[in-house]
Amino acid sequence: MNLNIFTNKKPPYICTPLTGGTSEEVLNQLETILPQAPDLIEWRADFFTDLADTNQVLEVVRKIKGRTDLPLLFTIRAEHEGGEKITLTEKEKVALFVTVCEQTEIDFLDYETSNEDKYIQKLRETAKQHRKRLILSYHNFTNTPDDNTELIGRAKQAEAYGADIVKLAVMPKSQADVLHLLEATRKMDELLDVPVITMSMGDIGALSRIIGWAYGSIITFGVGVEHSAPGQMPIKKLREAIQVTQQLVPNWK
Amino acid sequence: MNLNIFTNKKPPYICTPLTGGTSEEVLNQLETILPQAPDLIEWRADFFTDLADTNQVLEVVRKIKGRTDLPLLFTIRAEHEGGEKITLTEKEKVALFVTVCEQTEIDFLDYETSNEDKYIQKLRETAKQHRKRLILSYHNFTNTPDDNTELIGRAKQAEAYGADIVKLAVMPKSQADVLHLLEATRKMDELLDVPVITMSMGDIGALSRIIGWAYGSIITFGVGVEHSAPGQMPIKKLREAIQVTQQLVPNWK
Repeated sequence: MNLNIFTNKKPPYICTPLTGGTSEEVLNQLETILPQAPDLIEWRADFFTDLADTNQVLEVVRKIKGRTDLPLLFTIRAEHEGGEKITLTEKEKVALFVTVCEQTEIDFLDYETSNEDKYIQKLRETAKQHRKRLILSYHNFTNTPDDNTELIGRAKQAEAYGADIVKLAVMPKSQADVLHLLEATRKMDELLDVPVITMSMGDIGALSRIIGWAYGSIITFGVGVEHSAPGQMPIKKLREAIQVTQQLVPNWK
Repeated sequence: MNLNIFTNKKPPYICTPLTGGTSEEVLNQLETILPQAPDLIEWRADFFTDLADTNQVLEVVRKIKGRTDLPLLFTIRAEHEGGEKITLTEKEKVALFVTVCEQTEIDFLDYETSNEDKYIQKLRETAKQHRKRLILSYHNFTNTPDDNTELIGRAKQAEAYGADIVKLAVMPKSQADVLHLLEATRKMDELLDVPVITMSMGDIGALSRIIGWAYGSIITFGVGVEHSAPGQMPIKKLREAIQVTQQLVPNWK
């Protein structure tokens, strides 16, 4: 996939989550984040208290897109994969995704590969129709699957569903797990036709957020105001670490 | 082992090679290097054209130690492990090591684990007697042994010989090899009682010089004037990359 939405930049792209509960909080976070110059913004709409009010959701998206040209990723993280508790049924949630695709200028949407087949298919079609890019994701806050074939299998499943980008976030219990995730990332980068985003979460996995690009992960998440997953670092520090590292690693790939 | 020779600093320590052919060249390199503030200096005496003249060798060591308080590592890298061609026989080389230990203030010496048993034993005894620290090393400029047990076996062999520090430098053919070396490093750090120094060489392995500390490698080699192995980076850039990375990786270990 051509990610030319990020003109003149090479991966990794730094993505920052907005986690406000109200429209005002979300937009205030955006003001704090913009001077830190992330490469894209993720609105974690599962934190939004008025998620059941579609018009309010559309309004927030429009305000974000009105304020910045940065690509916007729209996510309603499922509770069973680390998201906030929401009142919408899965069917209602999917309907909201569809409306947001139809009526706003979001660039990416994120949906979990563990969801029901029919919903994934629906969002795949909708995204295509409205020229949005679909990220199909897998999160494991408990551990890092030992077997590389499990992680790679999940990535392949996401690709088979038609993901534009595949995302895997896992929790390490040791440095061995972090290396394991990096090795799986490298293999996925080799085996898949679509780009991958991976991270090893928490303090133990922090290094993967800095060097994951070296193994093919195209996006890394940094904190603008408030982190949305354990181990995320401040945008500026993260960028500095990536830049000095990339300068020193010659002729990458 | 207590490495309190490096007071108030935590690993990794940045080591810079001196590769001059003459006394003047070596000392000129030292002048260029000192403002870059490495943590230790390695004199790669195999580059020294008058290596057969023991008095000249002693003189150079004394001049280096007279110029700086930095710890000094004395190395005559064997040709079969990537060193320069020298005229001394192995027996003469070992005799030179002994004299240098007896008569100078070097802090470390480096000798290859692939050398004859009797010579390794001799240098082990000599180093102990004169309170020098012995690094037993393994270099592979061709590839990275596939099997982790081979790398770890070599490290264990060095420890069994009484190494104060074990060093392994290998050449990767892929990013998988680099991750493999990092995983072996982590295991060695767990299994051995002595510290390890590891690196994955060349352009492909460059990242290992920046992040090896995270897996237990206590020394990384940076270029002051001229590199002595492929993939070494300028000291200042290397330090910057290590520092920003370490700041971001919380509560390491």
